[in-house]
Amino acid sequence: MYKEDIIKAHQRIKPYIHNTPVLSSNLINKIVGAKLYFKCENFQKTGAFKMRGAANAIIQLTKEEKARGVVTHSSGNFAQALSLAAKILGVKAYIVMPKTTSEVKKNAVREYNGNIIECEPTLLARENSVKKIQEKEGATFIHPSNDLNVVLGHGTATRELLANQVNLEYIVTPVGGGGLVAGTIIATTCFAKDCKVIGGEPFEADDAFRSLQSGKIESNKSINTVAEGLKTQLGSINFPIIRRGIEKIIRVSEKEIISAMRLVWERLKIVCEPSSAVALAAIIREKEKFKNKNIGIIISGGNVDLDKLPF
Amino acid sequence: MYKEDIIKAHQRIKPYIHNTPVLSSNLINKIVGAKLYFKCENFQKTGAFKMRGAANAIIQLTKEEKARGVVTHSSGNFAQALSLAAKILGVKAYIVMPKTTSEVKKNAVREYNGNIIECEPTLLARENSVKKIQEKEGATFIHPSNDLNVVLGHGTATRELLANQVNLEYIVTPVGGGGLVAGTIIATTCFAKDCKVIGGEPFEADDAFRSLQSGKIESNKSINTVAEGLKTQLGSINFPIIRRGIEKIIRVSEKEIISAMRLVWERLKIVCEPSSAVALAAIIREKEKFKNKNIGIIISGGNVDLDKLPF
Repeated sequence: MYKEDIIKAHQRIKPYIHNTPVLSSNLINKIVGAKLYFKCENFQKTGAFKMRGAANAIIQLTKEEKARGVVTHSSGNFAQALSLAAKILGVKAYIVMPKTTSEVKKNAVREYNGNIIECEPTLLARENSVKKIQEKEGATFIHPSNDLNVVLGHGTATRELLANQVNLEYIVTPVGGGGLVAGTIIATTCFAKDCKVIGGEPFEADDAFRSLQSGKIESNKSINTVAEGLKTQLGSINFPIIRRGIEKIIRVSEKEIISAMRLVWERLKIVCEPSSAVALAAIIREKEKFKNKNIGIIISGGNVDLDKLPF
Repeated sequence: MYKEDIIKAHQRIKPYIHNTPVLSSNLINKIVGAKLYFKCENFQKTGAFKMRGAANAIIQLTKEEKARGVVTHSSGNFAQALSLAAKILGVKAYIVMPKTTSEVKKNAVREYNGNIIECEPTLLARENSVKKIQEKEGATFIHPSNDLNVVLGHGTATRELLANQVNLEYIVTPVGGGGLVAGTIIATTCFAKDCKVIGGEPFEADDAFRSLQSGKIESNKSINTVAEGLKTQLGSINFPIIRRGIEKIIRVSEKEIISAMRLVWERLKIVCEPSSAVALAAIIREKEKFKNKNIGIIISGGNVDLDKLPF
């Protein structure tokens, strides 16, 4: 299921994305007691895997839809990704952002020609702003994670990772809205045998963990985490995919996230976001389970404010 | 001249080093107005290009010399590189370090099984300590930069870069003791046509710049720079190579170094040392000269203390 879809998504977006490198570190392997292969989506265009899903969604719009533009709500990586993908494809992008969003993030979107629409920092205001743009401009709404085309686009990262490393026994990704992990599950089912997908989630934003437990979508009780990208709500399209295909979700503390992030910076010499470090933190937390295994990790992004590092 | 030597050095050290990736960033290219190709030696073993020269020097020792070990004085990247290269090759490494060296740096050497000998933080004490080890253990002294085998080993980074990017018109490196830039000049002469080598140096440690002006080796007047790795004295073996083969040395301010470093971290998403950023800072300082050119840059290393970032 979906094998052809991922292959087609990959062909579709290839001209617009990087086949990002896979890095590893002997020292991290020694510390963890396993062989880790980091798929560096922090090197992806706009600094995050989101470019894959954004491009895959926009390319498939009709000519008429493209002429009317796309709209999303995001103050994070999807805002930048949709802006750049739209720019490259000659489409107008409207980005709804809470007016409390930092200038750094707004400027990143402006850099890619995204049109920012500010709204009050509430769910209702955000949805109303999106609706207005849809009505006024006829723009197509593209959800940052809960959209099958976005999910399939994200899955192409795993296809590349599995082509680079054929013997993976696990792939671990962070879990926010669930788009990345759902795409990873789909791609792993299609292109690997005997490879399990595991999610990492902060204790402080563990909606997906609790949703798996209860069997229905739960909301975050808190979002007090350094992993900005994982504060979002698990999506209804992604949940059934995750429920069916994930081995488990491992929750990690803020301290574990920051310490894993530091390890990546110091040993791999790459800049990753706190959200990306959640996957490594999960592996370190349950070291015994992963002993001597070959493990792929998706480093989801590298967009950090160097003036506000958590260490 | 030296072509065979670089090829042989490369064959010799290949099993012990990484062929590090070459990265680029559309946004940095846009800012600079040229095409930049970053050879990421921060991803090299021990986090710096020094591994190349260290390995090339140790491998060529006789069996008897290897049995007696190697000694160097360094508190920086060469200390780690010699320790690891020696460890891999089954050779004992003695590392003379001023006792004022930070624990972080000492621990890095210990991690690679280097034997630290502490001395007073003066040139005389350092030389005496080295002499003692040479006499007592019969160890062979390997200078961190002023040694032809070390220089030829460093040159292999440029050979790889030129194999990856055939159209380079410039290669820019930082200049400290001169080992990297001398190796780069030799390799560029051998493996490129019409490619010029340019050095970047902090105003605060501009011994090489002034040496080129006066025609004899000058000392640093100050070493008040964030670029730790470039505080060292230009070497007598490297100077004639540099003098003959370099196009020019561009000096940069501390502010320019830090701002270039930030650009690399934010845009390339990699962790590099201040010393590495000196090369990019030099290009940005003389933007007009480099307009629309294809330029290789050696990112010399990525060993930074995350608790003491300059930004």
